[in-house]
Amino acid sequence: MKKNSVIETMLAHKSIREYKEKIPSEEEITTVVRAGQQAPFASQMYSILLSRKQQTHPFHAPLLFTICVDAHKFELIMEKRNWDMVSNDLTILLFGIQDAAYMAQNMVTAGESMGLGSCFLGSAPYRADKIAEKYKLPKRVLPLVQLAMGYPAEDPPPRPRYPLEYTLFEGEYPDLSDKKIRRAMEQMDEGYLQQGYYRKLDAKIPLKGDRKETFAYDDYSWTEHISRKWGQWHSTVKPLLKQLKRRGFKILPEEDANNS
Amino acid sequence: MKKNSVIETMLAHKSIREYKEKIPSEEEITTVVRAGQQAPFASQMYSILLSRKQQTHPFHAPLLFTICVDAHKFELIMEKRNWDMVSNDLTILLFGIQDAAYMAQNMVTAGESMGLGSCFLGSAPYRADKIAEKYKLPKRVLPLVQLAMGYPAEDPPPRPRYPLEYTLFEGEYPDLSDKKIRRAMEQMDEGYLQQGYYRKLDAKIPLKGDRKETFAYDDYSWTEHISRKWGQWHSTVKPLLKQLKRRGFKILPEEDANNS
Repeated sequence: MKKNSVIETMLAHKSIREYKEKIPSEEEITTVVRAGQQAPFASQMYSILLSRKQQTHPFHAPLLFTICVDAHKFELIMEKRNWDMVSNDLTILLFGIQDAAYMAQNMVTAGESMGLGSCFLGSAPYRADKIAEKYKLPKRVLPLVQLAMGYPAEDPPPRPRYPLEYTLFEGEYPDLSDKKIRRAMEQMDEGYLQQGYYRKLDAKIPLKGDRKETFAYDDYSWTEHISRKWGQWHSTVKPLLKQLKRRGFKILPEEDANNS
Repeated sequence: MKKNSVIETMLAHKSIREYKEKIPSEEEITTVVRAGQQAPFASQMYSILLSRKQQTHPFHAPLLFTICVDAHKFELIMEKRNWDMVSNDLTILLFGIQDAAYMAQNMVTAGESMGLGSCFLGSAPYRADKIAEKYKLPKRVLPLVQLAMGYPAEDPPPRPRYPLEYTLFEGEYPDLSDKKIRRAMEQMDEGYLQQGYYRKLDAKIPLKGDRKETFAYDDYSWTEHISRKWGQWHSTVKPLLKQLKRRGFKILPEEDANNS
């Protein structure tokens, strides 16, 4: 692999869940956000809310950024230009989420280049009403993801990723043989076990229904952990649709403003 | 602002639409994808399809990456672990799009650190059926965005972004005064006009219906351009839902597998 300071910063990435009390400087905060803004965009359909109430943050991180898809802000601009929003809300979200995520990922890497660690918190859309109340978000602003940030007080190794053969496909999508699936699982599971990742976090996901627990922290690893999420959580879309609707996003065809 | 080579790489970002014929090396391609993989993730719910059929690519870029949300691949793993996917598809897409976008943005920056330029192409979900056919994508794999990449044969300046006061809000979401809206519009519009951006691309979006064209390339700029997109395109969600459904993603509540 090629090496330079950008590549090395990315390869060294790890999520940080323990922070020093030291507060990043104004200059560091501005740099993180400006580097974020410079990511590619379709419409800059995002806003960032910053909180410094350290004691209220996950992991007591000094900074908590709440990264939002923001249609409101562009609709204010459209008004000045004498245009009404016509596009359906699922399309707005599809592009808005990408705009926001490209920006957020630059924030992560820019932070790391200055010695700041961070951790994404993905549950924001499911707590959108509470977050909206706290930050007084107008309608048409959806909290997408939160990013805790500060100086690391831990130094975990980078977590494993799938083998390249399970990620990058040339020309066409291959048959994923039993062997390839097993190799991908092994690379993830062995890697997490070697780091004692779930044991350290004490993060085993409880089983619902009739399933009996057969795993201990010497064999409970990534593929089992993630399977328990997707195999047990969010069985219906309704709570998410409700949160979206409260935030002013209506994605069902019968809610289309231009259904006629 | 703080400066280092990571920050400088990000601040120098621009989308590239003219490429040299020179083909990036295997090592460069591997490095770009490995740096992409090392981005934070919820479930690594993505795959990357690579094409080197330069003559068929947008801008005749040497490389075209098609970045997909891939639930299929994880469902193969769940099968080995004796789990069924239970989560609703909108939730899968919400997390999968973020996984894919964080990865994709690392690919952009990693490429730039090695002198490779790139350009995102956001229309992939609306052409999902055609892309799926070309790359033989299984069901449950959704093309999210394409990334053209290669050595730049142009050197445009970085495009402007909103002022920080229109992007980063502390504590709570502010009233966006007329003055702030106008300043944000001016920074974008003046910046694009100074670069002759739309004139160079000859990219004025035609007006539908009764609106009369009053803009020429000396005043047609970013806020008008983007307003014309959101004010005229994608009025109904149905074509997008149809593409999602064909790819095996059902996001309407009545399509919930677990609606009972």
